[in-house]
Amino acid sequence: MKTVNVGIIGFGTVGSGVVKALKARRELIRRKSGIDIRIAGICDADLRSKRDVKVDKKLLTKDAYKLIRDPQVDIVVELIGGIHPAKEIILESLNMGKPVVTANKALLAHSGEEIVKAAQKKSTYIRFEASVCGGVPVIKAIRESFVANKMAALFGIVNGTSNYILTQMKEKQVEFKVALKSAQKKGYAERIPSLDVKGIDASHKLAILALLAFGHHVKLSDIYTEGIEGISYRDIQYADGLGYVVKPLAIAKRHGDELEVRVHPTLISKKHLLSNVSGVYNALYLSGDLIGNSLFYGEGAGKLPTSSAVISDIVELAKNLIFGGSGTIVDPEFDIGIKKVRKRGDFYTRYYLHFSAIDKPGVLARVSGILGKHKISIASATQKERKREKVVPIVMTTHWAKESNMAKALKEIDRLPAIKKRTIAIRIEGG
Amino acid sequence: MKTVNVGIIGFGTVGSGVVKALKARRELIRRKSGIDIRIAGICDADLRSKRDVKVDKKLLTKDAYKLIRDPQVDIVVELIGGIHPAKEIILESLNMGKPVVTANKALLAHSGEEIVKAAQKKSTYIRFEASVCGGVPVIKAIRESFVANKMAALFGIVNGTSNYILTQMKEKQVEFKVALKSAQKKGYAERIPSLDVKGIDASHKLAILALLAFGHHVKLSDIYTEGIEGISYRDIQYADGLGYVVKPLAIAKRHGDELEVRVHPTLISKKHLLSNVSGVYNALYLSGDLIGNSLFYGEGAGKLPTSSAVISDIVELAKNLIFGGSGTIVDPEFDIGIKKVRKRGDFYTRYYLHFSAIDKPGVLARVSGILGKHKISIASATQKERKREKVVPIVMTTHWAKESNMAKALKEIDRLPAIKKRTIAIRIEGG
Repeated sequence: MKTVNVGIIGFGTVGSGVVKALKARRELIRRKSGIDIRIAGICDADLRSKRDVKVDKKLLTKDAYKLIRDPQVDIVVELIGGIHPAKEIILESLNMGKPVVTANKALLAHSGEEIVKAAQKKSTYIRFEASVCGGVPVIKAIRESFVANKMAALFGIVNGTSNYILTQMKEKQVEFKVALKSAQKKGYAERIPSLDVKGIDASHKLAILALLAFGHHVKLSDIYTEGIEGISYRDIQYADGLGYVVKPLAIAKRHGDELEVRVHPTLISKKHLLSNVSGVYNALYLSGDLIGNSLFYGEGAGKLPTSSAVISDIVELAKNLIFGGSGTIVDPEFDIGIKKVRKRGDFYTRYYLHFSAIDKPGVLARVSGILGKHKISIASATQKERKREKVVPIVMTTHWAKESNMAKALKEIDRLPAIKKRTIAIRIEGG
Repeated sequence: MKTVNVGIIGFGTVGSGVVKALKARRELIRRKSGIDIRIAGICDADLRSKRDVKVDKKLLTKDAYKLIRDPQVDIVVELIGGIHPAKEIILESLNMGKPVVTANKALLAHSGEEIVKAAQKKSTYIRFEASVCGGVPVIKAIRESFVANKMAALFGIVNGTSNYILTQMKEKQVEFKVALKSAQKKGYAERIPSLDVKGIDASHKLAILALLAFGHHVKLSDIYTEGIEGISYRDIQYADGLGYVVKPLAIAKRHGDELEVRVHPTLISKKHLLSNVSGVYNALYLSGDLIGNSLFYGEGAGKLPTSSAVISDIVELAKNLIFGGSGTIVDPEFDIGIKKVRKRGDFYTRYYLHFSAIDKPGVLARVSGILGKHKISIASATQKERKREKVVPIVMTTHWAKESNMAKALKEIDRLPAIKKRTIAIRIEGG
């Protein structure tokens, strides 16, 4: 039996989960993989807090560089998160030719290209299954299982916090702020929740997925990103009446040499599988020319699912070390066909529109006229209340429309004297 | 760039799909994997039929053994199906130390142990991602991604034909025979459809999944298997009224040292993701102690998804050959904790019961009394029509009950003079 030694940087929630599972599963993993995975050391700035796993004190250190430079350490596992010093620790490890496992999506989204190139230069590997969709192996699926496919699209719920908040709003009939508080109370949202609710976390994950699926490094600034803070319970309710659920989606679609990448709340038909993905669960559709449509669903975060993904990466890298194998994408930019990221104005989607209009004759005709002028055709229209000469909600859905046309139309509509608030526009996906 | 040569045995639907994709994707796969996959030869008994891919005639042969013994051939891909001569071809290849890819679930279910041992003896590999759920990588997920998990349960729709038939029955409001004809017309069901509609194909797949998830070789005869032929449109309709959909499920659950394995039509709540898996689509729930519940969904059969899975196995084996890696489960019987397969009488489930009873006072009381005597408590009961002194349907759902108790109760109930037909009992899963 061969032994592989891992050095774990970060002994927080995920770190302690990984340590606990590695210890408890040592024999199971040995039997399944033929390799003995040993913890050679654990590094954290805080060595005093109680963790739910007992470790030999001799394994603990505050010095990350000492640990990664320890010749005993074969694989480095970075679980501290954030950009610095995670990046330096990862680059230093790779430069020493040591393979690295990380769950750090922000770092990968910001510096993925640099990190992948550092690994390639030293013919070693970087693995990050836990960075997207927690315990659900979407990265392995794209990289290995769908290797023969030309990927057409991927879209899904990759941020559990936003999904939890929108689910709570619907089920408890409450507004965003109340649902956010509940998410914070449950530990699903941070005290400063902007990374999640503004769609930034989802855009990080989308950048990683887009590289793997389409072989193209997407700049974060090129991903159109919209959070869920603007969604009100009323729109969730109206959407429900129309047969839709509001879900926080990350979307990447290929159109010839263009890649469309966007993150925003979206109306999804209740007939669609994604509409039943609730709470903190994640789900990702992957669409390829051979596989057709496939869906991966599961817990997108949390200590145990994340530990499961981190350990699967450790075992894979350990196999590579022992048996000499390789699982890297040799050329991450394998697809030279994609030339650019589609501009926001060129998106085509259907829309849900919610106008706040004075209830008087001719208003609907004016609004429809402006939409028509900009080549936007209406699929359904309902006035939700009747109150002569007062402001009432008018809800419409449109057929496919170009985003730049929609922007122009809404600008014009919102200037009408009969329109009293900024019109709410939410994109519709999936038919 | 290293080259790996594959010999393809079987040039039918899947075989020609694999050849076509391998040829069309040669450059893509090269860039993604760093390996050039070359077709060294193709064997089929019929070399005259037209295929939708052009191949050099020099590659074609009718002699499988000549092809697998060709020293040029590094990997053997068996796509002829059936037990013989597929088994002999695979064993001969493994004995020569050549890794094998197959999609042959029947063979694996019957002779998996022998084949896995033959591979181990020669330190080579057998790969079979395409054998379960087509293009959806459930096998890789269990074997690699969930390596650190103790699996608790797996269940899902693994036979697309049965799912298509039940979906058609519901949507078109037709009986089994009509839906079967439509499936045959579309090419989803064989002329002799028993493998699919009797649950045999699903039991083959369940045996494979159980080995991978629980490390235990399950005999096919130990899997309780029930087909969908007994399902009538009326029961689908009644189930719908109760909030359920009838789905063909394969189920494996661990209870300490016992494994429960069964295949049968099942009532699933409409709130459950599986209830929305329609047509020929497959979906599999995998439940582990770290990952929680995850779901994998996609096309479970068909030329292109199957080709995608076969090629992913070829690429993995090619990497192993070139870079020396290993991805096998070293010990497929890794879990020495499972001692036996649970007996049918010891299953616990909820039940849907459909009695054909004379509409007269006291009948419902008699039926309930017998159920109660056998420790079965009723969750809901509805008499569907009223026709004094005539036979009417009574539909019940029960709470959790032991199958041996249910068998005794139904035997007793069906002997009552007021019960005019054999009672229909369908198990309920998932709440």
